[in-house]
Amino acid sequence: MNLSVIFYIVGQVLGIEGIAMALPCVVALIYHERQGLAFLPVIAVCLILGLIARIRKPARMEVFARESLISVALAWIAISLLGALPFVICGDIPHYLNAVFETVSGFTTTGSSILTDVEALSHCMLFWRSFTHWIGGMGILVLMLAVIPMGGGKTMNLMRAESPGPSVGKLVPKMKTTARLLYQIYMALTIAEILILIITRMPVFDAVCISFGCAGTGGFGVLNSSLASYTPLQQVIAAAFMVLFGVNFTAYFYIISKKLKLAFGMEEVRVYLGVIAASVVLISINTYRVLGSALPTVRHAFIQVASIITTSGFSTVDFNAWPMFSKGLLVILMFIGACAGSTGGGLKVSRVIVLAKSVRNELRHAVQPREVRQVYLDRKAMDPNTTISIYRYFITFMLVFVVSVVLVSLENHDMSTTLTSVAATLNNIGPGLEMVGPSANYEFLSPLSKIVLIADMLVGRLELMPVLILGLPLAWKKAARSSRR
Amino acid sequence: MNLSVIFYIVGQVLGIEGIAMALPCVVALIYHERQGLAFLPVIAVCLILGLIARIRKPARMEVFARESLISVALAWIAISLLGALPFVICGDIPHYLNAVFETVSGFTTTGSSILTDVEALSHCMLFWRSFTHWIGGMGILVLMLAVIPMGGGKTMNLMRAESPGPSVGKLVPKMKTTARLLYQIYMALTIAEILILIITRMPVFDAVCISFGCAGTGGFGVLNSSLASYTPLQQVIAAAFMVLFGVNFTAYFYIISKKLKLAFGMEEVRVYLGVIAASVVLISINTYRVLGSALPTVRHAFIQVASIITTSGFSTVDFNAWPMFSKGLLVILMFIGACAGSTGGGLKVSRVIVLAKSVRNELRHAVQPREVRQVYLDRKAMDPNTTISIYRYFITFMLVFVVSVVLVSLENHDMSTTLTSVAATLNNIGPGLEMVGPSANYEFLSPLSKIVLIADMLVGRLELMPVLILGLPLAWKKAARSSRR
Repeated sequence: MNLSVIFYIVGQVLGIEGIAMALPCVVALIYHERQGLAFLPVIAVCLILGLIARIRKPARMEVFARESLISVALAWIAISLLGALPFVICGDIPHYLNAVFETVSGFTTTGSSILTDVEALSHCMLFWRSFTHWIGGMGILVLMLAVIPMGGGKTMNLMRAESPGPSVGKLVPKMKTTARLLYQIYMALTIAEILILIITRMPVFDAVCISFGCAGTGGFGVLNSSLASYTPLQQVIAAAFMVLFGVNFTAYFYIISKKLKLAFGMEEVRVYLGVIAASVVLISINTYRVLGSALPTVRHAFIQVASIITTSGFSTVDFNAWPMFSKGLLVILMFIGACAGSTGGGLKVSRVIVLAKSVRNELRHAVQPREVRQVYLDRKAMDPNTTISIYRYFITFMLVFVVSVVLVSLENHDMSTTLTSVAATLNNIGPGLEMVGPSANYEFLSPLSKIVLIADMLVGRLELMPVLILGLPLAWKKAARSSRR
Repeated sequence: MNLSVIFYIVGQVLGIEGIAMALPCVVALIYHERQGLAFLPVIAVCLILGLIARIRKPARMEVFARESLISVALAWIAISLLGALPFVICGDIPHYLNAVFETVSGFTTTGSSILTDVEALSHCMLFWRSFTHWIGGMGILVLMLAVIPMGGGKTMNLMRAESPGPSVGKLVPKMKTTARLLYQIYMALTIAEILILIITRMPVFDAVCISFGCAGTGGFGVLNSSLASYTPLQQVIAAAFMVLFGVNFTAYFYIISKKLKLAFGMEEVRVYLGVIAASVVLISINTYRVLGSALPTVRHAFIQVASIITTSGFSTVDFNAWPMFSKGLLVILMFIGACAGSTGGGLKVSRVIVLAKSVRNELRHAVQPREVRQVYLDRKAMDPNTTISIYRYFITFMLVFVVSVVLVSLENHDMSTTLTSVAATLNNIGPGLEMVGPSANYEFLSPLSKIVLIADMLVGRLELMPVLILGLPLAWKKAARSSRR
């Protein structure tokens, strides 16, 4: 194993985190907040580690599957452990485990909080909290690939290890250009949301933080009421942007390249929008009795559906008070998640499409055993290996879910709390139901449960393998028989 | 499609049901119960239909995959619809839908009841209720294959369609002999249990009915308290027999054939017993506080674990009052289920082994992408197609689970009730948690939910395909392009 490459990558990522922390310092200066000082020692540590890594740049820059998975996992753990320090140093979140929970929740764009009173935080800390969403949404390694010359061409594995979805589509032949393009689209959409929200008279600070939360499909807000205190128009704008950030970014690349037909023909995007529409209709019908008037019912249904399927986790109503049918639908949306290649979490729409089509094929196969059937996506037959790896992904995902539920069940809370606390973190949503519902938070959980859920957030965001193999002895063996790809 | 073969098979099965109904009539004679008369018209109908089928015996007796799946599904639906009639005619269960629910629950060896007061039933009806478990446990088509000459050798598909497990092992080359052997082992074990329970001074009627419930891993009892009113010894004996009936019957065949090494070396059986042992230990530790003394704690843990993993559903305590961790474990055991080739339900241990090993392989594959890994069971590499069909089975199973939960959630009960009512019927357990817990029943549910759960019981017992393809237009097309296997 090429340990020096791993150290180099983690160091580079920490360097980027150090630079990123300059932004909340600027916010602290604007609002004259002493809490901003808490970032300085952490910035120093990050930059020094980044510098050491750069000086000790490895001779061979090849990054094989194993190295890239481990680098990505360790990089995410490192930025979380260091990113949590400012909260503790300034005293806004006194317990380190809570601060790590909040930071992992930020970077993984989960949005589960241990804070009861968000509004008590200083501006610079609120900004940092939301900014972690933005960094984590598109991925800090993608950012690294975009800005740091890696040399050699073997960086595809890194991108693959961090990007959501069953297959990473390089937009253009060069990885670096792809990474840059993704961040350019990401930034343009974020700025658009900020501007539109400011035009609707949202305070600038709120507009920036909410936009970060929507962009990364994170869900941290700056008010205790999440989005509920904003105007209906602002809420709908935020929800609409969540939907946009949940779209496969390849679609935007097609649009930029003026291949509109390709963009609007993407099966995953069509199914994604179809699921949203169907869920809004069903939930509106089901919750109509609760509110009694049609327009707010549809509006709340749309915002909640958009927020949950994109795995953002913002809320405008306490959907825990909704009828069971609507709650059940929301939990299903949690698992479906957004499109692959978006900033959202969950299983991803394209995987769910493949799973559903496989079930249909299996039924047909039972009737006509001699017919060989393949799964088609975007009218192209899928490579059977990809299909099988999606099956295995789903099985592994469910196993992680079950094991986590067992561990959290030691808390002895009700089933709804137990199941949805895991579902909401593993799928990177944020709020679950009952005791972890939209009007509650995760502070009351035991340290064990918090550690389990922290792991789940990372496992979910990095799509299982990078984090899971850390526990595999084989991954640490010096000479794995074959680690090349 | 060979409709005449389907009609022949369904008719034969109904004929067998008619003959089987003679037994509860005998019970009625012994106890001088007028209710026994309710069976006579149904017996007449069954025998007439069976006779018509025999007279119109089809020229070609070939049973292809499609015909066998449809025959099995229709046969099970037919015996349930007719088997429910005596309950309605005698007035013990006035509503037909409830009677069908109870009968499907019986034949599918689920054991979910809509009865509040079991003890109010007449002996002959209680006997019939438990006898459906015994018939359904090993399968009525297996029984048909054992006793009725089918001619031609194409009956493997039928056996495959009804038998639980990913692959049907013919014990001996001839299907008829295999079916007979299975029923001989089944009957011997049942008689052994009846005798042992009688020796421990259980009333003969109870001993017979409880043994039917254990043999089929059904769970219908004759007392409102399920097994709780019997002596601890009797409870443990019943639980031990449940475990025995949950073992892959191939193991018993090996024992009879004096291949003890093969019998005790079966990986599935070892894992099955290991999971039971581990669950008993964990639940004992977790529930020790509830009871306070060690021996009853372990005893109740063992009985409940045995009852749930074998998907019987008998109970000696209200495990709904257990801590969440123990309840969570029980729900997991519901899904794992018993061994393939046993009378139990659930996913089956062998499938779970394959799923777990696939996850391990997937992790290793992530580290060493160039290594090709297969799943080994009993030290033999599995056919990749079998592995993939197990993945698809799991995915289909989860999809049925999710869709059913959504439909039942329209009832607007709590999540625990909603989830476990489906889990307990789809896996053929019986009781779930909360409102469908061991001390409750399914009577309060809406007709829609009852129909969904009836379908789930059939889908679970017949292992998805036979029932699911009934809804597939392709299955009914006259000339499917290829229906041969």
